Amino acid sequence: MKWLTDKEMRAWTGYRRMRLLLDLRLQRELMSQSGLSEPDYDVLSNLSEAEDHSMRLSELARHMRWSKSRLSHHVSRMQQRDLVERHECADDARGSMLVLTERGRQSIVDAAPGHVTSVRKHMIDLLTDDELDALAAFSHRIVERLSADDAAP
Amino acid sequence: MKWLTDKEMRAWTGYRRMRLLLDLRLQRELMSQSGLSEPDYDVLSNLSEAEDHSMRLSELARHMRWSKSRLSHHVSRMQQRDLVERHECADDARGSMLVLTERGRQSIVDAAPGHVTSVRKHMIDLLTDDELDALAAFSHRIVERLSADDAAP
Repeated sequence: MKWLTDKEMRAWTGYRRMRLLLDLRLQRELMSQSGLSEPDYDVLSNLSEAEDHSMRLSELARHMRWSKSRLSHHVSRMQQRDLVERHECADDARGSMLVLTERGRQSIVDAAPGHVTSVRKHMIDLLTDDELDALAAFSHRIVERLSADDAAP
Repeated sequence: MKWLTDKEMRAWTGYRRMRLLLDLRLQRELMSQSGLSEPDYDVLSNLSEAEDHSMRLSELARHMRWSKSRLSHHVSRMQQRDLVERHECADDARGSMLVLTERGRQSIVDAAPGHVTSVRKHMIDLLTDDELDALAAFSHRIVERLSADDAAP
């Protein structure tokens, strides 16, 4: 085990603090602008980008790294708000299919511009061009490595 | 409102995905190695770095961006595990004082090497020297800006 150097510690504590403050701010602005929580936004944006605006609950849960039961509870509350529909497939072991409603589609269309403005204001517009490249490169490298670990037996 | 360019989108989606996968992995390894959750670790490491191994609950809550009641509930569970003590200050409106116990001190001493190894393996050692500098620079810039906003009236 090797302790972090000063330079590494500065990068690590910066990341940790940025993550905490940025997430809180983005969530707060998203909620006040659109009435959507971050998981609501994730569900709606994933469905809006999917073919036929629909995805299996199990597939969406895997993508969001949520358990199926946690996502199922969350989606039930979104159904009550008429943002998504759930179709049970009794003859298919892969389980229920989620479909974006017209109201859900309108919600994400309405919410997206404000959310992008928040993301720009609090993060993206504060980075230089080289920093954007660096972030894109190392974040995707980290994600690939973690995903490969997960896929390993 | 200006949509994100491809380059900006690559940085943003990389950040979001990295945050999700990295946090899950670090939390899982921390818990399996030491039996500590991430909030447990934060409370213990903040106290271990504080003068006299003690901090006011209100001050720690502000630092962690938790509500006092949420932190108070969390700390009650840590008290039951003999990781921290809480001293009520009846004559002080600033409220209770948290103190690290010997067992709490030992827990963070035991947990730290494994946690640092995880942080190195899944993040820090995957970054080039220039990427470490870039991350340190832009994360602290973002944190400063968000903190300044919070301090504004």
